[in-house]
Amino acid sequence: MKNVTIIKIGGNIVDQPEKLQYFLNNLHQFEGPKVLIHGGGAIATQLSSQLGLEVKMHNGRRITDYETLKLVTMVYAGLINKQIVASLQKIGCNALGLSGADGDAVPATKRPANPFDWGYVGDVNPANINTSLLTSLLGRGITPVFCAITHDGNGSLLNTNADTMASSIAIALSGEYTVKLIYCFEKDGVLSDPDDNDSVIPLITKKSYQQLLEEKKVVGGMIPKLDNAFAALENGVSEVIIKHADNLLVPKETLLKI
Amino acid sequence: MKNVTIIKIGGNIVDQPEKLQYFLNNLHQFEGPKVLIHGGGAIATQLSSQLGLEVKMHNGRRITDYETLKLVTMVYAGLINKQIVASLQKIGCNALGLSGADGDAVPATKRPANPFDWGYVGDVNPANINTSLLTSLLGRGITPVFCAITHDGNGSLLNTNADTMASSIAIALSGEYTVKLIYCFEKDGVLSDPDDNDSVIPLITKKSYQQLLEEKKVVGGMIPKLDNAFAALENGVSEVIIKHADNLLVPKETLLKI
Repeated sequence: MKNVTIIKIGGNIVDQPEKLQYFLNNLHQFEGPKVLIHGGGAIATQLSSQLGLEVKMHNGRRITDYETLKLVTMVYAGLINKQIVASLQKIGCNALGLSGADGDAVPATKRPANPFDWGYVGDVNPANINTSLLTSLLGRGITPVFCAITHDGNGSLLNTNADTMASSIAIALSGEYTVKLIYCFEKDGVLSDPDDNDSVIPLITKKSYQQLLEEKKVVGGMIPKLDNAFAALENGVSEVIIKHADNLLVPKETLLKI
Repeated sequence: MKNVTIIKIGGNIVDQPEKLQYFLNNLHQFEGPKVLIHGGGAIATQLSSQLGLEVKMHNGRRITDYETLKLVTMVYAGLINKQIVASLQKIGCNALGLSGADGDAVPATKRPANPFDWGYVGDVNPANINTSLLTSLLGRGITPVFCAITHDGNGSLLNTNADTMASSIAIALSGEYTVKLIYCFEKDGVLSDPDDNDSVIPLITKKSYQQLLEEKKVVGGMIPKLDNAFAALENGVSEVIIKHADNLLVPKETLLKI
């Protein structure tokens, strides 16, 4: 099988033009076909407040009401996605920006309003992803660049978690490719001591993950990231790597294996 | 040669959700492969004023400074483009939204600052358009949906006139297809009396256009539209039609021929 790498960058990289450009340069040098998924960043929040939109949160996560959906569609699918595409084109990487609605690439289901109504939030079933479109683009030497906006097939766009979007696309492509999934963020990997960037855990297996959870060495936002990662590994993805966005070409990382 | 129809809708249709949906339903029923180009509409201006951005105009046309470029990228490439794509997907039309940066589909050149600096405005040379991407998408049964944002290949997005974008794409595809170009707007066609919607001129040739110009029967924004149309006809496009967006499937229109 051919190889493909699914790479996700977080919003904090997107927020820093120089860091983003450095990352994109590395992405272009990264060998083989790849798909980029980008998070949102602080721009949406800034714009919300400029527009006097109330940002509604629940358990530290944004609720996507209709006005917020329009805002994140503008910022993620418009501004950020097209700026990344133009920056990649500049350096000779033939990028093509997509939302999940485009070519019905990533259909999603609006999350049920019970037990909590998150608003226009979409959950993705990897089985519904349009892999033939992605395969065709990759075959033409194109690098698809996804924002985490999907659609319900009934005319509504949906805000989707970018980590889940990345793992879902990775799982979907694993039927036709050997898939590596890389989560790039602002730390060097999964740290055993969150305050010490030198405490990268080089390898986490499903068994050692359970132990880390019990010892409360993995906490907060890292838990859903690792859950996503292991779900990907259990559903066909060959390996998952968590590393700093600056280190895309450097073997300093946490490797996850089942 | 195969047929393709390039259809442009103006911002005033985009601004009216019911009219837009009616148009999109007709678009889906319109036979044969097609490419949609959409204008911007009033949303960008509304958002400008909400954000306290000064809208700078010159001879009735917007100057695209950097903040305005970001705004129109959000609104045109993000909100409007993805809403149209999601609406088309809902009715079974496999739409895929693009800016000119995506897949390097429509490269442009920043307009020289002399004699007047329009800011981040891009002019398109049809010879540079990436027809192989469009041909490949059309061949997969996909309907490309373009906003009028292009890029300079050097990392900068550019705001482009949607009429010109449509005629440029039409010209570029005329090497491989028999191309029909349809401009949809808010009147029934080119009117001999601007106040009388029943005064549609059914046929304008290049010769009769000169006469209409001399008699000042064609004025204002219609002149660049017709100039674009005749430029398209002189560069390979088979026919150009100007008609009401409501009448896409109705033979009530102005037909332009050389």
